[in-house]
Amino acid sequence: MAFIHTGSTIRTDLALEAHEALYTRNHQRIPGVDTLTRSTINTTVTKVQITNTDGARRLGKPPGNYVTIESPKLRLGGHVIADEVAQVLTEELSALAQLPDKATILVVGLGNWNATPDALGPRVVDSLMVTRHLFEYAPQELQGGLRSVAALAPGVLGLTGIETEEIVRGVVHHIHPDLVIAVDALAARSLHRVGTTIQLADSGIHPGSGVGNKRLGLTEESLNTRVIAIGVPTVVHASTLAQDALEIFSTTLIQHNVVSPKELEVALPSEQQSKLLQQLLPARWEDLFVTPKEIDALIADISQIIAGGINAALHPRITAGQGEHYVQ
Amino acid sequence: MAFIHTGSTIRTDLALEAHEALYTRNHQRIPGVDTLTRSTINTTVTKVQITNTDGARRLGKPPGNYVTIESPKLRLGGHVIADEVAQVLTEELSALAQLPDKATILVVGLGNWNATPDALGPRVVDSLMVTRHLFEYAPQELQGGLRSVAALAPGVLGLTGIETEEIVRGVVHHIHPDLVIAVDALAARSLHRVGTTIQLADSGIHPGSGVGNKRLGLTEESLNTRVIAIGVPTVVHASTLAQDALEIFSTTLIQHNVVSPKELEVALPSEQQSKLLQQLLPARWEDLFVTPKEIDALIADISQIIAGGINAALHPRITAGQGEHYVQ
Amino acid sequence: MAFIHTGSTIRTDLALEAHEALYTRNHQRIPGVDTLTRSTINTTVTKVQITNTDGARRLGKPPGNYVTIESPKLRLGGHVIADEVAQVLTEELSALAQLPDKATILVVGLGNWNATPDALGPRVVDSLMVTRHLFEYAPQELQGGLRSVAALAPGVLGLTGIETEEIVRGVVHHIHPDLVIAVDALAARSLHRVGTTIQLADSGIHPGSGVGNKRLGLTEESLNTRVIAIGVPTVVHASTLAQDALEIFSTTLIQHNVVSPKELEVALPSEQQSKLLQQLLPARWEDLFVTPKEIDALIADISQIIAGGINAALHPRITAGQGEHYVQ
Amino acid sequence: MAFIHTGSTIRTDLALEAHEALYTRNHQRIPGVDTLTRSTINTTVTKVQITNTDGARRLGKPPGNYVTIESPKLRLGGHVIADEVAQVLTEELSALAQLPDKATILVVGLGNWNATPDALGPRVVDSLMVTRHLFEYAPQELQGGLRSVAALAPGVLGLTGIETEEIVRGVVHHIHPDLVIAVDALAARSLHRVGTTIQLADSGIHPGSGVGNKRLGLTEESLNTRVIAIGVPTVVHASTLAQDALEIFSTTLIQHNVVSPKELEVALPSEQQSKLLQQLLPARWEDLFVTPKEIDALIADISQIIAGGINAALHPRITAGQGEHYVQ
Repeated sequence: MAFIHTGSTIRTDLALEAHEALYTRNHQRIPGVDTLTRSTINTTVTKVQITNTDGARRLGKPPGNYVTIESPKLRLGGHVIADEVAQVLTEELSALAQLPDKATILVVGLGNWNATPDALGPRVVDSLMVTRHLFEYAPQELQGGLRSVAALAPGVLGLTGIETEEIVRGVVHHIHPDLVIAVDALAARSLHRVGTTIQLADSGIHPGSGVGNKRLGLTEESLNTRVIAIGVPTVVHASTLAQDALEIFSTTLIQHNVVSPKELEVALPSEQQSKLLQQLLPARWEDLFVTPKEIDALIADISQIIAGGINAALHPRITAGQGEHYVQ
Repeated sequence: MAFIHTGSTIRTDLALEAHEALYTRNHQRIPGVDTLTRSTINTTVTKVQITNTDGARRLGKPPGNYVTIESPKLRLGGHVIADEVAQVLTEELSALAQLPDKATILVVGLGNWNATPDALGPRVVDSLMVTRHLFEYAPQELQGGLRSVAALAPGVLGLTGIETEEIVRGVVHHIHPDLVIAVDALAARSLHRVGTTIQLADSGIHPGSGVGNKRLGLTEESLNTRVIAIGVPTVVHASTLAQDALEIFSTTLIQHNVVSPKELEVALPSEQQSKLLQQLLPARWEDLFVTPKEIDALIADISQIIAGGINAALHPRITAGQGEHYVQ
Repeated sequence: MAFIHTGSTIRTDLALEAHEALYTRNHQRIPGVDTLTRSTINTTVTKVQITNTDGARRLGKPPGNYVTIESPKLRLGGHVIADEVAQVLTEELSALAQLPDKATILVVGLGNWNATPDALGPRVVDSLMVTRHLFEYAPQELQGGLRSVAALAPGVLGLTGIETEEIVRGVVHHIHPDLVIAVDALAARSLHRVGTTIQLADSGIHPGSGVGNKRLGLTEESLNTRVIAIGVPTVVHASTLAQDALEIFSTTLIQHNVVSPKELEVALPSEQQSKLLQQLLPARWEDLFVTPKEIDALIADISQIIAGGINAALHPRITAGQGEHYVQ
Repeated sequence: MAFIHTGSTIRTDLALEAHEALYTRNHQRIPGVDTLTRSTINTTVTKVQITNTDGARRLGKPPGNYVTIESPKLRLGGHVIADEVAQVLTEELSALAQLPDKATILVVGLGNWNATPDALGPRVVDSLMVTRHLFEYAPQELQGGLRSVAALAPGVLGLTGIETEEIVRGVVHHIHPDLVIAVDALAARSLHRVGTTIQLADSGIHPGSGVGNKRLGLTEESLNTRVIAIGVPTVVHASTLAQDALEIFSTTLIQHNVVSPKELEVALPSEQQSKLLQQLLPARWEDLFVTPKEIDALIADISQIIAGGINAALHPRITAGQGEHYVQ
């Protein structure tokens, strides 16, 4: 019934949103896509498995496992919910990663540390428990229960002049990790996801995704290493909001029988819609975002949760909240 | 012709935008409002003088002088344009302030230093050339060409539990300034104003204005001192963008004779429009903003320009760029 | 036996250090000074009560209660010790404050937010659970178990041109708190205190104390309200380190019978010693500090602990770690 | 005449200080070392050329060119001096680099962005005009007068678990720069150098140098590319200050004939001196620094100057202050 959206224009980094958009229209199982849900007190965990290229095409995501942790109460705050979400992240990351005891892991914090909504990855890296250098120099007894973890915040193309993938590949080539975990800020379709949702995906990071619009990806193919992506929606594109406003408006008019879908199509064909949006959004600013006013605090809080969850998943000795002081 | 906007719903902190919105509809002089324009190489300066309560009612602003400095190229960056804008700000502020040589001035940086788009005021205060304490202790020869300047970043109600006006009034009561300059981040109606426009107003800061939604104001009445407000749009409310999307859409449909204004009015009366918008914007988040991705850099740059312009206007000895090292 | 130090030149903000310096020399109880010690797993709490002007003169501190919480392991990090220290701070602050249920408290974060070692106070304020404005507007049920707390980070004289005391007095005059809690970064005599010691004192903040060298104080006399000061050593003055080097050197030479105290006195009278130190430390920089390289992380960690301890002491409903999300 | 210092214990990253220390003792030309001085209004430029291994041994630095720009007034501030120093840096860097028009340059910002005195390198990188990615995508006319510049802030071992050299080598291997410029915060012997001195050296970065104590270096040998190091003293080691205090004290005692050098040697042999210093400085904190209180502002200012000087040296089209807005 959607007037403006078509399946091909859903623009979201979240497999769950892509799945919901399709499922809501048809209310029937999508071929090539399996879903599974579990709950904890304050979270819902949805696993979307894209099992073949048919499912991949429909959802606009490569085959793989996509785990989404949702906790709307996360925005209400407090340690209790934060600890629960970190714990769930630890469980899901451990299950997805299936790491042997002796593994070496490289965590890559994608994004621009100078742009608050895009700074999630670098902020997570700053709170990680990095140990790779200890394995070379520290006494044996300090190493028990720890895995070898390295971390990198490579910056963004505009800051470095170097594709992120190029930097990461050089480091991967050198330290030969068993797993790369890439943390990134995402754009969501819906504002209620901002700061409340964490996605894990074992299909890597793909070009054009994330807040910073990567031109290359970080995948098992490009790095020759398994890649798990952890993403958190921190913004909604302004164009998404504007588009949604048009959609909801046109749907309402059709429901009220003021216009027919056909009349709308004639009066405002797709290419006209884009032009309308361009009037609203200045040409030079493709990168206009909708964020909550408290985005600085939101990024600070959620990056602590992500770092805590990763620390506990990678270092069996550690439970959430103990890792920080290995950080220099 | 506007379907959704009516005069009463224009929500902007800029007198210029309020004026343009009215003027564009009627293309005739607005009673109680005088305007004057001048240009420099890269700026346009528009003075809107609201001369009586009739003009005040029409523009939704109290009587007073509103000077708007526009420089679209400011966003392209570089010292040349920044220096020119700072210089124009110095001239306009000097003209508005009409300060005697021996004046004491209190600059108040409004806003929340922990929320990037709202941090303009505190950032300006950090770069001001503060001298009031020197007048008490420093040798006479250091004082020539300087005025006594104090500065304060009082925070926001949510950070302090104290109304900003209460804090400022206490300080004003103590140091008896001849003038209060209040610097604040504003919300604009249009994204092309973000980071390109500076407004000076001698009517003070009024409740509900600014990014932080003040509940009390800073005015000559409340402080018993002249108040000049300097504001820069750093955000657009997300609801403004959504509303604009609806407006532009309905205007287009009417132009194409798909619907008549009357049919629209019936299908979507005003109160229905608000409900539509609420579907798009989560209930808890009145404070959703549209910002450019580079908001952090934008705030850093523009706060330097504002501080430079104020420093030179207040201290005759100083030209732009010389003041910073009096700052501790 | 000390060659260089005399009782009058002990320069420390910690009553405990002043007491130790005296006590170590004489190993006998100091008249007008009572001490009491208790321990928890990872902390030692020492209460120094200066009961009369004789004790005050000897220790160079006004009469009052000085509670010092020491936890050398605090620098090793981790949540367990941090939580224990916050808990001990809550207990000691509650005992010292003796607040009725309906009290209003103003927390003042002293220091310069732009100078890392001096930013402790403002950082604590940023993490406080501020509630005063809720009492005016929020429903009754939200208020149970909370006290009315306001907070202020007034900046330093060099940033504002206004004496801190002037700003605070204006606010106190307006909101009439039952208690002012002033948080400040201190200078210690010994590097091993940096980041490991918290001092509470009910005698207020006095001129010349703290990292920022206040010129006025915050005391019950000046504010007409009870004042509790919470201080944490974050630096050692460079001149203290240099002086200590001279002292330890001369003591060693005397112990080895290379020189006699008298010969040293003749060769290097007190005024000569100052000149020697001035050769080492540039004239313009009275404010040279010795800090650990990780001072940024240290300030971040300890300010969370202090804020947590204060939140739990002021709001009976709150336990450590729950308060942050009332912060805007 | 020095009692405590011997030539081998001079610990400074500045060739100029090493040279002065030697020269002051003997007042005669040091074999294998040539020096040349020039002045501008507010700067003195000293070139120390270490021409052979004999000179290298004496100065404790590898052979190469060391250019030191000194400007004591830099700490007084203001744009005039800052611009002059940036201009001198541009000239000296251009002379040392001898770049062809089509060169690719990689600028590496060494140090820890979370530790203020060590954050110089990353801060410089944040203000560089990075262009390498433009050469791939931008139209030809945008490229005139620009060279291809990439930049990297690789972090420190404690943050990443990866040796800096490993990260840089991976990137160098990939982008094949004609020159690597490595920017680093240094430790000086003397406090008056902090924030007033810039050193350029074409001998690269060597293990153990800098604030962060590198374990590997960045040299032409290790990277197979020419390396120019730009360093600014931002701290003095606390142990240096303590050692200086001992030295100045012993010299004074000897001058006053209170003790003979021999008696001192017997009473306090070298290994005893180290033990004395250890009493002053806590064992766990090798990294104790002396810094001015205003270190945050100092790092902000000097990193702008360094970035401006590099931008103008690398991009002939650019003059100081024009580069920043190519930065994303």
